Amino acid sequence: MIKISFPDGSVREYEQGVNGLQIAESISPALARDVIACGVNGETVELNRPINEDSAVQLYKWDDEAGKHAFWHTSAHLLAEALQELYPGIQFGFGPAVENGFFYDVLLKDGMSIKESDFPTIEAKMKELASKKEPVVRKEISKADALKEFADAGQTYKCEHIEQDLEDGSITTYTQGAFTDLCKGPHLLNTGAIKAIKLTSVAGAFWRGDATREQMQRLYGVSFPKKKMLDEYLLMLEEAKKRDHRKIGKEMDLFMFSERVGKGLPIWLPKGTELRLRMQDMLRKIQKNYGYQEVITPHIGGKNLYMTSGHYAHYGKDSFQPIHTPEEGEEYMLKPMNCPHHCEIFAWKPRSYKDLPLRIAEFGTVYRYEQSGELHGLTRVRSFTQDDAHIFCRPEQVKNEFLRVMDIINAVFSIFHFDNFEAQISLRDPNDHEKYIGSDEVWEKGESAIIEACREKGLKAKIEYGEAAFYGPKLDFMVKDAIGRRWQLGTIQVDYNLPERFKLEYTDEDNTKKTPVMIHRAPFGSMERFCAVLIEHTAGHFPLWLTPDQVAILPISEKYNEYARKVAKEFDVVGVRATVDSRNEKIGRKVRDNEMKRIPYMLIVGEKEQADGTVSVRKQGSEERGVMTIAEFAKKINDEVAEMLRATDVKPED
Amino acid sequence: MIKISFPDGSVREYEQGVNGLQIAESISPALARDVIACGVNGETVELNRPINEDSAVQLYKWDDEAGKHAFWHTSAHLLAEALQELYPGIQFGFGPAVENGFFYDVLLKDGMSIKESDFPTIEAKMKELASKKEPVVRKEISKADALKEFADAGQTYKCEHIEQDLEDGSITTYTQGAFTDLCKGPHLLNTGAIKAIKLTSVAGAFWRGDATREQMQRLYGVSFPKKKMLDEYLLMLEEAKKRDHRKIGKEMDLFMFSERVGKGLPIWLPKGTELRLRMQDMLRKIQKNYGYQEVITPHIGGKNLYMTSGHYAHYGKDSFQPIHTPEEGEEYMLKPMNCPHHCEIFAWKPRSYKDLPLRIAEFGTVYRYEQSGELHGLTRVRSFTQDDAHIFCRPEQVKNEFLRVMDIINAVFSIFHFDNFEAQISLRDPNDHEKYIGSDEVWEKGESAIIEACREKGLKAKIEYGEAAFYGPKLDFMVKDAIGRRWQLGTIQVDYNLPERFKLEYTDEDNTKKTPVMIHRAPFGSMERFCAVLIEHTAGHFPLWLTPDQVAILPISEKYNEYARKVAKEFDVVGVRATVDSRNEKIGRKVRDNEMKRIPYMLIVGEKEQADGTVSVRKQGSEERGVMTIAEFAKKINDEVAEMLRATDVKPED
Repeated sequence: MIKISFPDGSVREYEQGVNGLQIAESISPALARDVIACGVNGETVELNRPINEDSAVQLYKWDDEAGKHAFWHTSAHLLAEALQELYPGIQFGFGPAVENGFFYDVLLKDGMSIKESDFPTIEAKMKELASKKEPVVRKEISKADALKEFADAGQTYKCEHIEQDLEDGSITTYTQGAFTDLCKGPHLLNTGAIKAIKLTSVAGAFWRGDATREQMQRLYGVSFPKKKMLDEYLLMLEEAKKRDHRKIGKEMDLFMFSERVGKGLPIWLPKGTELRLRMQDMLRKIQKNYGYQEVITPHIGGKNLYMTSGHYAHYGKDSFQPIHTPEEGEEYMLKPMNCPHHCEIFAWKPRSYKDLPLRIAEFGTVYRYEQSGELHGLTRVRSFTQDDAHIFCRPEQVKNEFLRVMDIINAVFSIFHFDNFEAQISLRDPNDHEKYIGSDEVWEKGESAIIEACREKGLKAKIEYGEAAFYGPKLDFMVKDAIGRRWQLGTIQVDYNLPERFKLEYTDEDNTKKTPVMIHRAPFGSMERFCAVLIEHTAGHFPLWLTPDQVAILPISEKYNEYARKVAKEFDVVGVRATVDSRNEKIGRKVRDNEMKRIPYMLIVGEKEQADGTVSVRKQGSEERGVMTIAEFAKKINDEVAEMLRATDVKPED
Repeated sequence: MIKISFPDGSVREYEQGVNGLQIAESISPALARDVIACGVNGETVELNRPINEDSAVQLYKWDDEAGKHAFWHTSAHLLAEALQELYPGIQFGFGPAVENGFFYDVLLKDGMSIKESDFPTIEAKMKELASKKEPVVRKEISKADALKEFADAGQTYKCEHIEQDLEDGSITTYTQGAFTDLCKGPHLLNTGAIKAIKLTSVAGAFWRGDATREQMQRLYGVSFPKKKMLDEYLLMLEEAKKRDHRKIGKEMDLFMFSERVGKGLPIWLPKGTELRLRMQDMLRKIQKNYGYQEVITPHIGGKNLYMTSGHYAHYGKDSFQPIHTPEEGEEYMLKPMNCPHHCEIFAWKPRSYKDLPLRIAEFGTVYRYEQSGELHGLTRVRSFTQDDAHIFCRPEQVKNEFLRVMDIINAVFSIFHFDNFEAQISLRDPNDHEKYIGSDEVWEKGESAIIEACREKGLKAKIEYGEAAFYGPKLDFMVKDAIGRRWQLGTIQVDYNLPERFKLEYTDEDNTKKTPVMIHRAPFGSMERFCAVLIEHTAGHFPLWLTPDQVAILPISEKYNEYARKVAKEFDVVGVRATVDSRNEKIGRKVRDNEMKRIPYMLIVGEKEQADGTVSVRKQGSEERGVMTIAEFAKKINDEVAEMLRATDVKPED
């Protein structure tokens, strides 16, 4: 018998050689139906792999990343199997699972190519093969045998890959029906679970990403265990296209890019800047209650700073290159993060235990090089502003600081109506403590502090072993947006490394020098990315407290422009943000144009309103209509905003 | 007869060959007594230089830069004359007038050197020579004769300078008593006016600033026409030392520098950041009233941006060097100014005359390389944040925009109590229109717009011809601080160049494309520099609305800490910024420590205050004392602040 331990801490005994499917069956028939793959001591394997010793086991379903990954990986093989039947002589490159599906790189013979119009035929063939429920069979194979097998099959690229990258003794193949692939797995037990398939696009891709090698075709696809899930996914894609923050950002004049300024370097236009500053001020207000102190540091740092922090070694050829100066030996870097600067602030003067926790915050703009092909609107950029903070504290203060940061993140998510979020705790690999910096004692203190903090806040957090950074455990927040997509936003991260490297110290109560623990945290993560997510979450319909213009005043004709401006002026005095559409256009056109700008309220004013000192209210996206006095309407707006902002009236319990 | 025109526009006739002194005498005896040098068609010359044709003449007194410059330049010669007598065989390098006095670079024979203890002897000798009222005689001399004369005098460095740098036909010497110097002048007519002399320091300086050449001694001094002026100057220096922003910045935890981050790269500490953000928000509020729109742009820009702006050619070896990336052909610069980015924003979409003036504002951090030896606290740095804005407008809107910017600058100076300021209008060189970009028509329109705007605002502004940049005229503001020093702060500058280079255009009323005029403006200039000046102006006693902590609450003993915190909490609710000194220290010590922190009000609380719900008020730097209830005191603070902020309640007249 062997002992199998589960993530919830429970332990069960099984016979040696038991596999994941059998374990699932022993728990419940429903689980056995849904389980896709299993984790054994941190490695994901097929459900039929025998387990021969005491192990930590996780059972993955579709909702787990590892489950989806195996499902899509097998789907990639299914695609290749179909293509092999449809296009004899086809050459295969790589075919992995990716974030939202899978792809396969292929090269047809005789210069032929696959077009989007071929997709239905390929999808039909894949479904036909899947319906056969062919088992996927894993085989360990020697390098020589592998080379021979793929050479016989005429797979030049597979042979090159075996020859150049793989070591004898570590090679496996997976076979389903007539198709065999070189693969590390894991896979589904058979292809029968793949019920819904959609090929999404085809693009060019160089073999090994090397522009000097052959150009292949990359076929992207996605698959699901249920037809309904595919339908929902396609609907979501459709909706996502409408909500694309690049499109809405342009329509609403929020941000721009300029080829001359540089790719991936966002410029915040006036409306976007208003939005961002209002978000920053909102967070500032919360942070003030929680004892944060804001600083401003330069956007470059000297070589010595990054030698000390250890980042210098990571400035490779794929980064922004160093900035030299006329003075010899001087070398600066665009800062890729704010922490080294904040360590220097801590080190600036002697610190006592009474000064801790010291919470240093900065809206710090950082620069990280990304390949131009990787750039995407505000979500993948080369410069972004972190709502960064570093908390320097004693080891025993970690838990309380996590509780406080969780309060802040909670308030932030709440005011933006990200009501659906998940958390993930990343801990050490239990089998390899060597690769982490810091003593077992501080790690255990830190890890249990995070777990306890989540428990105290009633936050359901998934624990992932082996996902901690080498310098400390962390807690990440993933929000689900209005159309069901998940985004990693806030993060809280313990760091035992930088305080050591910067030789930071404080004088403790017993008058000895001690090293503080450092916590990195960012509720928004990046202002750019958060705004992008917010735009797509709200489709540009920002909450009333945040939106640049709360009210558009539309005079029926130019005759009432003056009254409209008078109304706007009265609003300005009481802090209601209004704009007047004084163009010489028909009212219908004005309504349509202002709907496009996504201003929450439109106020139509004409003869009657002017005579009565009123406005005709029209709420965006609702049937709400009515006539109010200027003062009544202003009060309504300010009351709504005050109600919304109540979510930020949080204070630490202690 | 020739016609002499004066800066006020008046014209008088004189005989050909008249000189500056005679012109002064013809105006008034007082002027003749005070005049030091004169400007003839933009060139400053001695008062005895004959004027032979119609000319524009300016008469310079001590209060004019040109007057002081001539005075100090003659003083440098007087120093050399004294040294020549005291140290036979001395070699002379260069000896110019500088911003606050003059220096001379010298090398004694046989490795001897001058020490500070020698200063009284040298000063005495200078005074003795000055009292002789020796005339200073100018002579034009051929290169051959000059070489011979200085070789005969054994002046090796002067000979090297003649040989390498000077052209035959352009060489002049000035002689007073037994001392002759190679010099372009101008000088006083005789040394008698130099009544008060102080040598201030001696330092090492390489010949020609070249570290591979001989090290000489640089003697610094300052001189005045009256003994009283020297006394005041020395007192001012003493006071300036006490107000040094580097010292106060450290005492008040406002900012820091880190060797690892880099020299000249200021880090704003929490109290300094509070200060800066409050200043920014104050300006934002005014700018909102004046129709500015804020943006945020990256801190780098691509090579193409600076090729377009024309700045690329100026990135020499003495700048931060370009940032390369892995992608070929990509090259970025740290941005030295924000205007090219703002031009890209203007160019982002089609603009109509209805969109103008378009006022784009940014608190933009820029990076400019300065030699490490030139760096000084926050006044000479390598990174600073401009309170920048660029106004794009039609040529006929320039005047009104100047009026509006002058309102803003006026409000800013007023709220900081810079009550004493001067303005300077820099116009084209009337004799050389060729070197300026843009048509005569737009220049005339721009120049007269500035002059008229100053007149309308009743602003006394000095006109300087030939001081305009090649791309447009400008208006600069110089403030006098509390100890009489002048600082250049705000600036408004017309630019006809960048809109051309960026091919900016708007559609005018007549449907044709036109090029907008651009106005650069910055009321603070640089946040860093302004803060430095403000610290020295106020000696760290910031105005109540601005200061990070308005109130320090000092419990008599730890027994009253809780009451002190209760008071602080009540203040917080109504927006009064208070800190509690809860240390276990005697009240006297607490008062002294908090005086050092320059917190405007100290509130002492003990048994009686706690029982009555009151505070004992003690105002910094005043005898004001009294007991008030918590609410009364909070109201007093808020009223004082509101009264101060009234200066920012400015709105455009139109």
